[in-house]
Amino acid sequence: MGGDNAPGAIVAGAVAAVRDHGVPIVLVGAPRTISEALAAHDAVGEIPIVRAEEALAMDEGALASLRRPRSSIAVACHLVRRGDASAVVSAGSTAGVVATGKLRLRAQQGVLRPAIAVPLPTRPHPTVLLDAGATADVKPEILVQFAHLGAAYAETALGIERPRVGLLTIGGEAEKGNKLTKRAHELLAAVPTLNFTGNIEGHDLLNGVVDVIVTDGFTGNIALKTMEGAVRYAFAELRETLEAGRLSRLAAALQRGRLRDLRKRLDPEVYGGAVLLGLNGTVVIAHGASTAKGVAAACVLARTLARQGTVTHVGERIAAGHKSLRRR
Amino acid sequence: MGGDNAPGAIVAGAVAAVRDHGVPIVLVGAPRTISEALAAHDAVGEIPIVRAEEALAMDEGALASLRRPRSSIAVACHLVRRGDASAVVSAGSTAGVVATGKLRLRAQQGVLRPAIAVPLPTRPHPTVLLDAGATADVKPEILVQFAHLGAAYAETALGIERPRVGLLTIGGEAEKGNKLTKRAHELLAAVPTLNFTGNIEGHDLLNGVVDVIVTDGFTGNIALKTMEGAVRYAFAELRETLEAGRLSRLAAALQRGRLRDLRKRLDPEVYGGAVLLGLNGTVVIAHGASTAKGVAAACVLARTLARQGTVTHVGERIAAGHKSLRRR
Repeated sequence: MGGDNAPGAIVAGAVAAVRDHGVPIVLVGAPRTISEALAAHDAVGEIPIVRAEEALAMDEGALASLRRPRSSIAVACHLVRRGDASAVVSAGSTAGVVATGKLRLRAQQGVLRPAIAVPLPTRPHPTVLLDAGATADVKPEILVQFAHLGAAYAETALGIERPRVGLLTIGGEAEKGNKLTKRAHELLAAVPTLNFTGNIEGHDLLNGVVDVIVTDGFTGNIALKTMEGAVRYAFAELRETLEAGRLSRLAAALQRGRLRDLRKRLDPEVYGGAVLLGLNGTVVIAHGASTAKGVAAACVLARTLARQGTVTHVGERIAAGHKSLRRR
Repeated sequence: MGGDNAPGAIVAGAVAAVRDHGVPIVLVGAPRTISEALAAHDAVGEIPIVRAEEALAMDEGALASLRRPRSSIAVACHLVRRGDASAVVSAGSTAGVVATGKLRLRAQQGVLRPAIAVPLPTRPHPTVLLDAGATADVKPEILVQFAHLGAAYAETALGIERPRVGLLTIGGEAEKGNKLTKRAHELLAAVPTLNFTGNIEGHDLLNGVVDVIVTDGFTGNIALKTMEGAVRYAFAELRETLEAGRLSRLAAALQRGRLRDLRKRLDPEVYGGAVLLGLNGTVVIAHGASTAKGVAAACVLARTLARQGTVTHVGERIAAGHKSLRRR
């Protein structure tokens, strides 16, 4: 029921996930609405529906999730908690998904705060940035946990051994940054189970110098949206440039197909969904503006994460991190 | 003496500022080195030199400025303090310029912390982002002062009446953000002399919805560098795209000139120097990698700011802000 294009795009994406990718799906929400959307794909009866009469609106946040214990996202989390589903996928309000996830699935043993991990479109493999907005105010110790969450994700979902972890701050030297990152730098450097390579800066987000970028949810969200906005701006300026002049118009026609491909690769919907890490269950947050394709990709990602045991691996890392802290 | 290309590009820029723009310049640094650089332009004797035997290296920060009271940047600040110069221009280490400026020029009456203002390349006029890195840890009250500094700059340097001021945070609603921005939002909304239009997000940096973007120096620096990195990334990907395939190569040749123009417009060196606001004197910080052109542009900007009395106007705004706070 969540997302700018719900329920149409959500149901269409679920149908694609089932038919094209063999992902077993359960849809959660208002049965009549969902059935109507399924009918458009001749898929009534093909995908089971679990009833949830309420839903969080896109502009609703943390408080609404307390007020509506039977919202579609709450019911979906409950299915995972009971073991009736392996993962939740939602394109709904991020604040609502985070708050409901925390409330219904609870944080994993030893995890102080959950984090949203987002894959950035670097090559040869994506770079994981976290936290992209789950927890706005953090302590240095929480950034260390985010490093473990991100490393676990990079290891299981991306298959990266000993992922290089960088701390997003201002200035490369250890003593640069704000109070939070200076202390976090010291703590990160002292964790033997982390491959911490030091500070990185804003211009390093897309150059692949690390595999995991650690930051608080406030900074991470601003960096991510700034990046998306700057890429969009560069392409808009480019289009204008290409369209000016006659020779250029010819050139633009030649380029159009390639430019579209490139733009797509930089599109958050295509380069992957965000993952809420640190809870007792797999939660994938698709972009609010997701089309069917984005929803299907998020379902495939959710299955991969559930199969690869990312949640279990996060738990092991956090436990090992605690042990290494006690030993010191 | 500061900057990646010093002294060659700095001296060349100064010569261009004098000859092409009629800006009266004094060069501060090691006389022999500067004279040699001037000789390359047949400009020995054309520009006066004030001796400073020491200089801050590019990787030196706040502490070095205490240790070296006779560095070129310290001497330059001293000239402004004594009234022998109207403004300082430096392409040296930002941390060094900020620390030396604070020490030698002192903060203006009532100003708690200085801020670096950077013009972003929006149209029809630039958007002022501050703080881009002078003060990493701030209190909400300091963000209100930054709003006044930015508004004064937009009014004097850009000629914008009643500049719209936005607070950089996550989520548009007043109650979204971290503790710092939530409290700052309340304070900003209560200042009658500010045209505060509310929260903005990372993707709003380049869309011109406000004239002044207020943020702490940590977040601002990361947003700015992320923006620069993302634009650079988009262009690199674009070049690769254009160079793939035969037809595309033809198209690329047609486009090259226009693309270079576009890229230049998005280049921080061309779209303007950063300005250190809140001190008893005009200080322009050119990009460390500045070429002669960037240095000349920074000198022209410094003259404009000095002529238009930005420092005086900042003082008036801060004083008015204090009065309005006392009245409440």
